[in-house]
Amino acid sequence: MNKIEIALLGLGNVGTGVWEIFKNNKDEVTRRSGYEIEITKILVNDVDKDRGVNIPAGVLTTDIEEILNNDNIKIVVELLGGMHPAKDYMLRAIENSKHVVTANKQVMALEGKELLDKARKNGVLLYYEGSVAGGIPILKGIEESLTANKIEEIVGIINGTTNYILTKMSLENMDFKDALKEAQDKGYAEADPTSDVESYDAMYKLAILTSLSFGLDVDVENIYREGITKVSSLDIEYAKEFGYCIKLLAIAKEKNGTLELRVHPTMIPIAHPLANVNDSFNAILIKGNAVGDLMFYGRGAGSLPTGSAVVSDIISILRNDMTLRSISTVENKENSKQILKRDSYKSQYYLRISVKDMSGVLGEISTIWGKNKVSISSITQKGEKEGIVTLVIVTHDAIEGDIIKALDELEKLDSVYSLDNLIRVEKFE
Amino acid sequence: MNKIEIALLGLGNVGTGVWEIFKNNKDEVTRRSGYEIEITKILVNDVDKDRGVNIPAGVLTTDIEEILNNDNIKIVVELLGGMHPAKDYMLRAIENSKHVVTANKQVMALEGKELLDKARKNGVLLYYEGSVAGGIPILKGIEESLTANKIEEIVGIINGTTNYILTKMSLENMDFKDALKEAQDKGYAEADPTSDVESYDAMYKLAILTSLSFGLDVDVENIYREGITKVSSLDIEYAKEFGYCIKLLAIAKEKNGTLELRVHPTMIPIAHPLANVNDSFNAILIKGNAVGDLMFYGRGAGSLPTGSAVVSDIISILRNDMTLRSISTVENKENSKQILKRDSYKSQYYLRISVKDMSGVLGEISTIWGKNKVSISSITQKGEKEGIVTLVIVTHDAIEGDIIKALDELEKLDSVYSLDNLIRVEKFE
Repeated sequence: MNKIEIALLGLGNVGTGVWEIFKNNKDEVTRRSGYEIEITKILVNDVDKDRGVNIPAGVLTTDIEEILNNDNIKIVVELLGGMHPAKDYMLRAIENSKHVVTANKQVMALEGKELLDKARKNGVLLYYEGSVAGGIPILKGIEESLTANKIEEIVGIINGTTNYILTKMSLENMDFKDALKEAQDKGYAEADPTSDVESYDAMYKLAILTSLSFGLDVDVENIYREGITKVSSLDIEYAKEFGYCIKLLAIAKEKNGTLELRVHPTMIPIAHPLANVNDSFNAILIKGNAVGDLMFYGRGAGSLPTGSAVVSDIISILRNDMTLRSISTVENKENSKQILKRDSYKSQYYLRISVKDMSGVLGEISTIWGKNKVSISSITQKGEKEGIVTLVIVTHDAIEGDIIKALDELEKLDSVYSLDNLIRVEKFE
Repeated sequence: MNKIEIALLGLGNVGTGVWEIFKNNKDEVTRRSGYEIEITKILVNDVDKDRGVNIPAGVLTTDIEEILNNDNIKIVVELLGGMHPAKDYMLRAIENSKHVVTANKQVMALEGKELLDKARKNGVLLYYEGSVAGGIPILKGIEESLTANKIEEIVGIINGTTNYILTKMSLENMDFKDALKEAQDKGYAEADPTSDVESYDAMYKLAILTSLSFGLDVDVENIYREGITKVSSLDIEYAKEFGYCIKLLAIAKEKNGTLELRVHPTMIPIAHPLANVNDSFNAILIKGNAVGDLMFYGRGAGSLPTGSAVVSDIISILRNDMTLRSISTVENKENSKQILKRDSYKSQYYLRISVKDMSGVLGEISTIWGKNKVSISSITQKGEKEGIVTLVIVTHDAIEGDIIKALDELEKLDSVYSLDNLIRVEKFE
């Protein structure tokens, strides 16, 4: 197995997520990339700070030159955030023929064109999936899977902090200040929340989405931007009366060759899929002239979700780097797994059953469940007709093999008229 | 611009969609693939049948040899469906060094391993995004964007026909037979609906999803399969009483190296995102150990949505075929577009405004709206406090420039105490 060295710039929230993923999912990453990937250098401000991860000696450095001038490092992963020095480091990495992965929305929104042009000229790849909507693979989705379409519209909830705040205001009747405070306490919002609550963050992300979807370079000055600070509990209450809720939407629409770009609080019908995107989740609705409406939903921020996008980008680079290998030689199979037998499924079960309306029936039935280790959550009687009563039984979690045995025994009871239906219950816990 | 010739096998529902997309989105497809793509041959049973599309003379053929033995044709797009002769044609195309795109779930579920191995050995690409969930880019999502993850769980609504039937049963209290009949009348279900209602279709798709996500070859015999024919209106009614609805779910879960694979009607909480996937829409929920919960939602079937997946696969092949070109030379930009000025946005608007409680106020306000060409949908008075009344005004569709002018004038009225908030209303029509 070939080895490859990479470097991280920054070891904050996303950086530690990337480190954890390489540690925990080493087998998957190796199998799918075709390489043993090793993080040999990480740029930090302070080598001695405790970050809760165990990094081998010699990996942390405060000297960017140890990374940019190291020919063994093939991929530089920029996770510093902000414009400076992130952009300069990315440019220099590209000039030194290193591939670059970044999660930096600001740099990509404001200087993406220059960086991508430079990467193309230097024959390296620059991937930035993590810069928009965290773990949701929306950029690759647009760039590789919707290429058959004219994109007509993008409407997204792409800032988790403000969605958390609006959710709290809407579902728990909090006012803006309390909801912001709670978001800060939970680490969703920063001490200075301006970038989120005044929609700069969403504006940068919309610029990136628009560039990819509509094939042009967007000047963020052309995006109308409004924050959520003016949304009051009153507005949320009145919106509900009309059947609406309030979400911070980023919107890009094309009509007749003209683009409309805006980010602002918006009332949307409560039955719309975007209305049910709550807490810090993100969702992006795309309308293509062939595919129709498509929605991507997931965690738009966080250490591991954004790390997932960054590490997947690294794997894509290793697969796509033509100087290294051909994509079709990557064998994406692992050893075979056990397949669980139906007998071993575990679930709650709903059973509809018709029994004769006679004394002692419930006792007989209960005995059989108990004997087969199935515990009952509820039994409801659903009316009687010509001496036959319908019972609706919902079990607690049980093993399907036990259920099957119990059903066999139930069927043989004189008091049981018919087993009408068995449906599994999924709680998504 | 280089030209490339491709051939379609079959010109049914999906085939005509592919033809339409190449016609309507020619510029996008050319720009994104780097090629002028021409469909020069289409295999059909009957050259003279009217299919509602205008195909040039000489393109339609009943002779597969005209395609398989034509060296100018670089990509064969298999849209025949079923096992035979689809699989043989695909194998022969691969042997003749042609790339293959297919939307055939049955062949890929049952014989995918053999075909993919053969493609790898022959140095060609075999893509099959259209085989699962129509236009939803779920296969590329898993294979290229979630590579950093151990996939732990996939739960999907991946058969549009049964979801349509269950939706009708649930929301319109239809019984199974009537709902099936309506699905057939609308073209969602076939005359013989067995493949859909007995869950064979979903089983094939789950096999493909599982192979990609968990890195193994799935024998469909290992998937527990149950259809929806036994679901009765009674079960749906009782499920509602518990706060649940019934969906046909395809489920793959891994725990401790053991996989659980099943397709059956399932009760799920009505507040869960999958519960709100209605009609013929599909949705797939994936849980990765880094990315967390991710959901893809869209049209799981149909001429243009599935065509979108097929044509995007063709473009991916042209970008990825290393014998042809390097991916990084494809310049995915088009000419610049007009950006709409804020003045020209069109929307409904919600305005919260405080006015003095005096006679003639409503008249003054109405006059200003009318003068500025803004038509009002509703005005509601929201209580009075110390002589100040809150009014909630919702407009019909209006131009934002007119709204701004009206607000300027309103602000100057003696009777207006304050303009409290303006929020745009999005109806997603």
